[in-house]
Amino acid sequence: MMTVVKIGGHVLDDEVLLERFCRDFVALAGTKLLVHGGGALAGEVQKALGIEPQMVEGRRVTDASTLRVVTMVYSGWCNKHLVALLQSLGCNAIGLSGCDAGCITAPVRPPRTLADGVTKVDYGFVGDVSPSSVDTRFLRNLLDMDLVPVLSAINHDGAGQLLNTNADTVAASVAAALGARLVCCFEKEGVLSDVGDPSSVIPRIDSASFEQLKASGTVSAGMLPKLENAFAALRQGVPEVILKSAAGLLSRGGTKICL
Amino acid sequence: MMTVVKIGGHVLDDEVLLERFCRDFVALAGTKLLVHGGGALAGEVQKALGIEPQMVEGRRVTDASTLRVVTMVYSGWCNKHLVALLQSLGCNAIGLSGCDAGCITAPVRPPRTLADGVTKVDYGFVGDVSPSSVDTRFLRNLLDMDLVPVLSAINHDGAGQLLNTNADTVAASVAAALGARLVCCFEKEGVLSDVGDPSSVIPRIDSASFEQLKASGTVSAGMLPKLENAFAALRQGVPEVILKSAAGLLSRGGTKICL
Repeated sequence: MMTVVKIGGHVLDDEVLLERFCRDFVALAGTKLLVHGGGALAGEVQKALGIEPQMVEGRRVTDASTLRVVTMVYSGWCNKHLVALLQSLGCNAIGLSGCDAGCITAPVRPPRTLADGVTKVDYGFVGDVSPSSVDTRFLRNLLDMDLVPVLSAINHDGAGQLLNTNADTVAASVAAALGARLVCCFEKEGVLSDVGDPSSVIPRIDSASFEQLKASGTVSAGMLPKLENAFAALRQGVPEVILKSAAGLLSRGGTKICL
Repeated sequence: MMTVVKIGGHVLDDEVLLERFCRDFVALAGTKLLVHGGGALAGEVQKALGIEPQMVEGRRVTDASTLRVVTMVYSGWCNKHLVALLQSLGCNAIGLSGCDAGCITAPVRPPRTLADGVTKVDYGFVGDVSPSSVDTRFLRNLLDMDLVPVLSAINHDGAGQLLNTNADTVAASVAAALGARLVCCFEKEGVLSDVGDPSSVIPRIDSASFEQLKASGTVSAGMLPKLENAFAALRQGVPEVILKSAAGLLSRGGTKICL
């Protein structure tokens, strides 16, 4: 079974966690791909360069200078640092952004009308990746060469414009396009029924129990987008989605999401 | 004939020059690879982050924070911006740093003793690339897939460490390893006999005339490393080295260097 593993920024911010994760990822059986976000470095560099983060309804607006920073940090430092580490552990990793061999080409996100029905928000250089964005033939060629693709969430529109995209969506789209299972790693052991108790992992969530969890307020606001992304991935044809901690990649734990 | 083209930072600093160069590069006949340095952005980011550039005898010392900046700028922004632009022009470019698929693995530069015979200088995270650093089998596989490799001068030691390397040396080493001709693009039309006269291009320099040009002081200090790198490339088996301007990639001009 092919696996797409997604890691968040927190793994990239902690050298000890990162090396441990990389060892586990290398040991993971079967064909695999890695998708990563960025860490705290993007914010640090942005601040140092005097760029004010622009947020609209909790979403970052990516202007030209912000795009340059996230491309530098995600596709430059995070991607190459991760690839060099995996290489040293005997994993033949190859770092890619969507422009490379045109492997992920996404449309620019159209401006959205806010809840007031009037205000239009242009998210800037942001793209919306879907399974049809992914050049599966190229990725399969790399996998046939026993290479392990490591994908940064910076993609392009095919017309020369780099685009900032959501790493969770990239991972889900790549998994859907390749028919691979999806493992999303984050800080917690899985979806918790009691946010203060790490042992309260819910082993399985389906569409019905997700509605109950939402209604009862058991699932925290921060978990909602992750779960919604997981269900979207399943609807797009991903055979299995698991949410678990980066430190537990090889363990049986975590929350399995089902339709 | 296969061609390795090297462009310097000045092309990356000028959007108009960059797009014109990319159009010419796409139109260049035959199998080709591109090697690029970084532009002024590295210095800007370094300054903004409060990192003091460290120079020893005109050479930059690469400490951990400097390495992070050059990796961000060269492998992140410059590499991906260039690849996205080439893709938009119909060229199936793929951006690579040496860690990617382990395509260029270099030893760390050992500390050097200065002219005083006592002071040892540790250049930090700097690697010395040679033709044996290059995984020609992997690069040939990409070329067989009609891909155009775009190489950043950030490489690795194979033990998890990214390394800053000299883009001219990377280009010469890749050309030597693949038996490709080498075109080094820079600001001027070629090597000039009169630095103030752009029409004074010396069409051909061989080892003997190079000695004369050095002795007479005709060749400026800035040109010496470029010419020495060209002769080193020829001695390593590169069949042809041409120094010319990025704007004249497709024209007949420039200086041809011969042994």
